[in-house]
Amino acid sequence: MKEPSQKLSHVDQDGKAKMVDVSAKNVTQRTATAQSVIKFPEEVFQSLSSDQFLGPKGSILQTAIIAGTMAAKRTSDLIPLCHPLPLSKIQIDIFPEENHLKIESRVKCEGKTGVEMEALTAASVAALTVYDMCKALSHDIIISETKLMAKEGGKNAFNR
Amino acid sequence: MKEPSQKLSHVDQDGKAKMVDVSAKNVTQRTATAQSVIKFPEEVFQSLSSDQFLGPKGSILQTAIIAGTMAAKRTSDLIPLCHPLPLSKIQIDIFPEENHLKIESRVKCEGKTGVEMEALTAASVAALTVYDMCKALSHDIIISETKLMAKEGGKNAFNR
Amino acid sequence: MKEPSQKLSHVDQDGKAKMVDVSAKNVTQRTATAQSVIKFPEEVFQSLSSDQFLGPKGSILQTAIIAGTMAAKRTSDLIPLCHPLPLSKIQIDIFPEENHLKIESRVKCEGKTGVEMEALTAASVAALTVYDMCKALSHDIIISETKLMAKEGGKNAFNR
Amino acid sequence: MKEPSQKLSHVDQDGKAKMVDVSAKNVTQRTATAQSVIKFPEEVFQSLSSDQFLGPKGSILQTAIIAGTMAAKRTSDLIPLCHPLPLSKIQIDIFPEENHLKIESRVKCEGKTGVEMEALTAASVAALTVYDMCKALSHDIIISETKLMAKEGGKNAFNR
Amino acid sequence: MKEPSQKLSHVDQDGKAKMVDVSAKNVTQRTATAQSVIKFPEEVFQSLSSDQFLGPKGSILQTAIIAGTMAAKRTSDLIPLCHPLPLSKIQIDIFPEENHLKIESRVKCEGKTGVEMEALTAASVAALTVYDMCKALSHDIIISETKLMAKEGGKNAFNR
Amino acid sequence: MKEPSQKLSHVDQDGKAKMVDVSAKNVTQRTATAQSVIKFPEEVFQSLSSDQFLGPKGSILQTAIIAGTMAAKRTSDLIPLCHPLPLSKIQIDIFPEENHLKIESRVKCEGKTGVEMEALTAASVAALTVYDMCKALSHDIIISETKLMAKEGGKNAFNR
Repeated sequence: MKEPSQKLSHVDQDGKAKMVDVSAKNVTQRTATAQSVIKFPEEVFQSLSSDQFLGPKGSILQTAIIAGTMAAKRTSDLIPLCHPLPLSKIQIDIFPEENHLKIESRVKCEGKTGVEMEALTAASVAALTVYDMCKALSHDIIISETKLMAKEGGKNAFNR
Repeated sequence: MKEPSQKLSHVDQDGKAKMVDVSAKNVTQRTATAQSVIKFPEEVFQSLSSDQFLGPKGSILQTAIIAGTMAAKRTSDLIPLCHPLPLSKIQIDIFPEENHLKIESRVKCEGKTGVEMEALTAASVAALTVYDMCKALSHDIIISETKLMAKEGGKNAFNR
Repeated sequence: MKEPSQKLSHVDQDGKAKMVDVSAKNVTQRTATAQSVIKFPEEVFQSLSSDQFLGPKGSILQTAIIAGTMAAKRTSDLIPLCHPLPLSKIQIDIFPEENHLKIESRVKCEGKTGVEMEALTAASVAALTVYDMCKALSHDIIISETKLMAKEGGKNAFNR
Repeated sequence: MKEPSQKLSHVDQDGKAKMVDVSAKNVTQRTATAQSVIKFPEEVFQSLSSDQFLGPKGSILQTAIIAGTMAAKRTSDLIPLCHPLPLSKIQIDIFPEENHLKIESRVKCEGKTGVEMEALTAASVAALTVYDMCKALSHDIIISETKLMAKEGGKNAFNR
Repeated sequence: MKEPSQKLSHVDQDGKAKMVDVSAKNVTQRTATAQSVIKFPEEVFQSLSSDQFLGPKGSILQTAIIAGTMAAKRTSDLIPLCHPLPLSKIQIDIFPEENHLKIESRVKCEGKTGVEMEALTAASVAALTVYDMCKALSHDIIISETKLMAKEGGKNAFNR
Repeated sequence: MKEPSQKLSHVDQDGKAKMVDVSAKNVTQRTATAQSVIKFPEEVFQSLSSDQFLGPKGSILQTAIIAGTMAAKRTSDLIPLCHPLPLSKIQIDIFPEENHLKIESRVKCEGKTGVEMEALTAASVAALTVYDMCKALSHDIIISETKLMAKEGGKNAFNR
């Protein structure tokens, strides 16, 4: 956990939501990497895998990558207190692993605040899209482990 | 896993994404319940909890509930192959449990197709909003267990 | 003021925002009329009026009408707890009166809940658009008297 | 009223709407403050006030603040000739006064054009949200006095 | 050309934009088919074709199909006087022909007004997406022949 | 056609859509001009022309210009792999010519990548809006020749 001082300086006494003022921050190159994992019942995963992830509604991986990319650009429209940021790169990769798909999103921006939320939103919406394209096959698909993997360019670099 | 017949009838042979034709389906009352869980490092959770979940940017729970509610209405705009649906109810509750918050979303609609994706999108965006409002405190917050809890009104009712 | 019983039945005890459940309501034809007034300093109004309301950025009235019409369709995307509604008519008229413009919006829908917010949003965004197109001329333009004029089709018809 | 020369130089002869070219302007730090006032019938205001502004749909003030904040970010999407701007701060405060609520919005940006419309849009949509959350109580709520209070960073600083 | 009577009954005398009132129309099943054609310089087309339409940014056809599908759902948000409609099916196919791609979109809805604009918007945005994904290869790509191919379910069925 | 080297360096081997990384590019002033042409059956064009392009739903040219302007700002939200760009100018002109309307759009931006897609999207959506406002008159209106006319500010200046 970070220093209480940092935390407390930001707290608005009566709990009103407010977008943090980033005007005094420097523009630097910011990157963030996030991931999300979608777990399938074994037989569903085998079936999808043997079909090269063509699900009932079309190519699951392609559709999810595009949906996640578009969602990253809409992050500040979805998350109330996020700043609008001029993203310079969005890349989403999806890796089939044992009975799950791992989604990895990487986002870059030159801005005054980091792009963690953009990377996390990209991974989450890609995961929801996978879910949508597979939900006719099972009600037991679970989106798990959506988390930040790395960030750079702000005060606190981080690498899991 | 459902019947192969059902699955195969929907598969488009060359993987092109396409929105399923629901025009022949009946309008019925559809409900879905979904949940998402946000896990915090213990000391972060204790700190948030003792502050009644007022985080660095304001009231975490109120902001997340509103963001999730608005996201539910935008589901078909985010998930490429979802149908637009006239939602008649969206309710989001957030329960503090042991070192995590559990988000529960319930969505209702009179329509030709179910509202699972709306409930899952509501829970996911509420969870992302919680993350955004707490991310200054830790990089180790994880969104996990986003899943369908129940659905009613279509061919396959479901209750976990 | 309406009956306490009605009010209290809707109150959620701990103040959590939630979209009211309208699933049990009947679909009826709903209409609402709203207005907004934009007041100008006299010389600005005279100047605009003598130019037939062609302002620095183009035709003020045409642009405002279109912006208000588009905003009405986005009401449920802007106002957190509004239901999405299939609007069947939106009409906006702008009347020059003494040193002000009066915007009148009329909205119609077949739905389970009224269209007051759609009419009010249409009038408000049309007024903001007028403001934007005239703001180079004065800082003393004021949007005033945005209010409901009439509604029909729900439990409480109203006509000012 | 400003100089006719300034005004006329911008007028497009046949009234076609067009976004002003700001490419030659300098990037400076821009701020704007706007306000909006929502007037209630006295007994409605007393009732809301004694309930700490928890209305039929939840916490009125929290929901309005979030809606206004999100709307500020969407200003260029709502007002046809507004430029997209990378807002660095949005703050909305709501003050209960005698039988009305005063909404004050403050917006900051580093850009080539001012943020008046963002501040006014934030205040207007927050006011509409208050209206929506209270409309079950009275048809006589009125949004009035939406106006610019101050701006800085462009050619014409202003302070009411 | 249709009857003058029909045309004139709709004309608003002073040219104000307004959404036509469809409240008195019947809900029927509406379909529309539209197409758009994208012409390429011969060597560019040969190259794309031999790469199976994998362009500089990824799979051209998949991305265009998804973009067109999502745009169809946003038609009433893009075209000022279109009514919001609950689309029940969107299908986009892209056919490689001699030095061009032909995009065909089919849209279905149960509503009070037709879905021509939805089909045309789907085809246009799919075509723009193809353009975007190929524009690094040539400045001489042209989107041509965007037109309605068929419609059914309203007063004037049509089949080219 | 451009050099194969350029093309191949961008190709992602398995066709996954991805937004090109522009973070290393310079910010320069970018402009692009595009056009679109809408062809009408002769008698429809004569009729519209003699009515000064006031169609069944209002002023065709004004509405199309505003719709195209707003769409330019939404380009990165519609075209999956476009970068969000802070547009500094959008201008749309519509010229009546022999049995057709020619739409010309000009867009300017200071950014790391060009604004061709913004200009093409503006022209396309303006054309779709013209279509929508005239479609009651004929099913034989065709949108043709949407193409880039000029671009400046990037590596490859172009002027048709």
